[in-house]
Amino acid sequence: MQQAPPDFSVKAQQLIEVGRFFFERGWVPATSGNFSARLDDDRLAITVSGRHKGRLGEADIMLVDGQGQSLSAGRKPSAETLLHTLLYRRDPDIRAVLHTHSVNATVLSKTGRTELRLRDYEVQKAFPGIDSHDCEITVPIIPNDQDMERLADRVVELLDRQPIPGYLIAGHGLYTWGNSVDDACRHIEAFEFLFECEVLTRRLGQ
Amino acid sequence: MQQAPPDFSVKAQQLIEVGRFFFERGWVPATSGNFSARLDDDRLAITVSGRHKGRLGEADIMLVDGQGQSLSAGRKPSAETLLHTLLYRRDPDIRAVLHTHSVNATVLSKTGRTELRLRDYEVQKAFPGIDSHDCEITVPIIPNDQDMERLADRVVELLDRQPIPGYLIAGHGLYTWGNSVDDACRHIEAFEFLFECEVLTRRLGQ
Amino acid sequence: MQQAPPDFSVKAQQLIEVGRFFFERGWVPATSGNFSARLDDDRLAITVSGRHKGRLGEADIMLVDGQGQSLSAGRKPSAETLLHTLLYRRDPDIRAVLHTHSVNATVLSKTGRTELRLRDYEVQKAFPGIDSHDCEITVPIIPNDQDMERLADRVVELLDRQPIPGYLIAGHGLYTWGNSVDDACRHIEAFEFLFECEVLTRRLGQ
Amino acid sequence: MQQAPPDFSVKAQQLIEVGRFFFERGWVPATSGNFSARLDDDRLAITVSGRHKGRLGEADIMLVDGQGQSLSAGRKPSAETLLHTLLYRRDPDIRAVLHTHSVNATVLSKTGRTELRLRDYEVQKAFPGIDSHDCEITVPIIPNDQDMERLADRVVELLDRQPIPGYLIAGHGLYTWGNSVDDACRHIEAFEFLFECEVLTRRLGQ
Repeated sequence: MQQAPPDFSVKAQQLIEVGRFFFERGWVPATSGNFSARLDDDRLAITVSGRHKGRLGEADIMLVDGQGQSLSAGRKPSAETLLHTLLYRRDPDIRAVLHTHSVNATVLSKTGRTELRLRDYEVQKAFPGIDSHDCEITVPIIPNDQDMERLADRVVELLDRQPIPGYLIAGHGLYTWGNSVDDACRHIEAFEFLFECEVLTRRLGQ
Repeated sequence: MQQAPPDFSVKAQQLIEVGRFFFERGWVPATSGNFSARLDDDRLAITVSGRHKGRLGEADIMLVDGQGQSLSAGRKPSAETLLHTLLYRRDPDIRAVLHTHSVNATVLSKTGRTELRLRDYEVQKAFPGIDSHDCEITVPIIPNDQDMERLADRVVELLDRQPIPGYLIAGHGLYTWGNSVDDACRHIEAFEFLFECEVLTRRLGQ
Repeated sequence: MQQAPPDFSVKAQQLIEVGRFFFERGWVPATSGNFSARLDDDRLAITVSGRHKGRLGEADIMLVDGQGQSLSAGRKPSAETLLHTLLYRRDPDIRAVLHTHSVNATVLSKTGRTELRLRDYEVQKAFPGIDSHDCEITVPIIPNDQDMERLADRVVELLDRQPIPGYLIAGHGLYTWGNSVDDACRHIEAFEFLFECEVLTRRLGQ
Repeated sequence: MQQAPPDFSVKAQQLIEVGRFFFERGWVPATSGNFSARLDDDRLAITVSGRHKGRLGEADIMLVDGQGQSLSAGRKPSAETLLHTLLYRRDPDIRAVLHTHSVNATVLSKTGRTELRLRDYEVQKAFPGIDSHDCEITVPIIPNDQDMERLADRVVELLDRQPIPGYLIAGHGLYTWGNSVDDACRHIEAFEFLFECEVLTRRLGQ
């Protein structure tokens, strides 16, 4: 690959570790999910397409430019790279994008509804700008699509009216982001916790 | 920080280990939860605000006095420190306070009820003063509040009529305590087990 | 303690390992559960009362005689030792007795019914004498009791009509046994699997 | 045993590792499940009958020929070896066959239905020939049978009309296969994920 930026290995290691953690929780089964981190000069470290996310090595992380073009000869980035780059272009403070694929996110996103509303959870405070449980947050749900350009257009559209750093794709899982890999990982933990609470609440008929 | 008491490292290590255990179980997601242990002279070791509870190091544990004031320069204790210090002041035998934030505790506490009643469980014997399954125990549920003084007042009030070492905050989780970190950890295990039994019982419509 | 039989350490190590495994699965929370293995001359290795079953060391395993009397000075065996010794006395081929305390076993045993019937599961073949899924097995449920003599009497009574190596105590968990620690551990795995299947079947309203 | 093919140890190690992974997930309880991998010359590495699948060593993997006859003196292959060899004979590209026994697969296969239909899941793309969520896949369910010849006949029959590499045996679990152990393992992950989604969907009454 093109000479790797100095922090490539550091960021790759962080993505390897979140992959191991997410896989143990069952959130990236069967090579699903993909992860990226911003490096210098608008270059990204991103997972190579089709790799097992629980057993990533540095060779499973590659370099792409800000348009998602491979800078690592012979390796193809995730099919959903466009969903990463649109976020980095939109906001210079975003430094990591994580996509997981849990059972709860999959099932909650397949209801036919266009959003998931959550309220009165202390954990909502994990998201930027939220300092109380006493508010409602909305997680948008967009239809799944194998046409990435069209899917990306829908995501761009919703971001304008979406204060919470995350959205669901129906039957497909969760996208979230943050100012660092740790920050985005905390958002994954918070969303997955809230999805599990929501599933349990519905089961209990509360 | 002020010169650390001789057993600071020992207690910090115990809090680090319960954090790792609770995180594996999914009981402290997204930096939620906080833990403390009493040291000599009414000083406490307590988790620093906002740290990841599954990957605590000794630098994530700090020293506060009996009023919850930081004795570790530049570090801020958990926002809920007051809920710890009121317990230590109240009962000299309390030597550890643990707060977890599980899905079951969150959902069971959001029903609008003011208490959770449990009976006929052998595990009830994990609590002090209970020597048979054949009795009812009551876990109080108090409304969540971002005003810690007001929340603390409500806790003090309920402690007078509460024989069991634990209470729930709605949508927010469980507080428990004990005569040692091990003792408080056993209470966490017992409460979380009972919450899971209760959730399952309701699901089965029993 | 009285001079330990030569295989004490080997058996203690096996009990330590099943404890670690059961705890990871959530089957022995809050110091619940107890385990024993037969040594030579009708002496047993058994868990000391009140120890954490997920972090047992050799000092948490003690020696008792065939009547359950301590042969390890200063250590008290589990309160339920009688439920172990009655099995060893009854059948010389029994060499291990394991008691777990899972959520599923607890909730399924609290229905007020006196037995749990299971059929058409391939896993039934894990039990001695069963060579097909095409039969019904019955797991008896006896009421919980803090009077161990009375509880033991009830167990003896049911053993006469019970071909399957296991029974439930209401709100209290599962007892099983086998010709070795591995054998009894396989029974635990099979029962817990079947309990989980049963719980799920009921939830789905099948 | 007959002189082992040069890649016996490599394949055995892969089967040992999938066993450990499946056991941690609870998919091969109580010695259930069995795994095989094709070696050169139509010989297979396959798990020895009755071994604990979470703690396999190389001595728990043996050699059989293409008809399932033992080539490892004194060791008996899994009772279900016939269900492996029929797949290898049928398709030279199949190089691994894996059978798991999860709670979800067991319960979903005991409904009396003859198939499980799934649609609109992104994870469907884990299967060969599927490149969109927007289709329906069908997992056949065949009745359990202790007569392996008869069971094998039923499997052969369904394979002719089955594009997806997997089927369920009622109350007994999942069989899947692939072009490598990794490939078959990805199919296990995808099927188990889909089964869990399906169970949750039914619970929520969606």
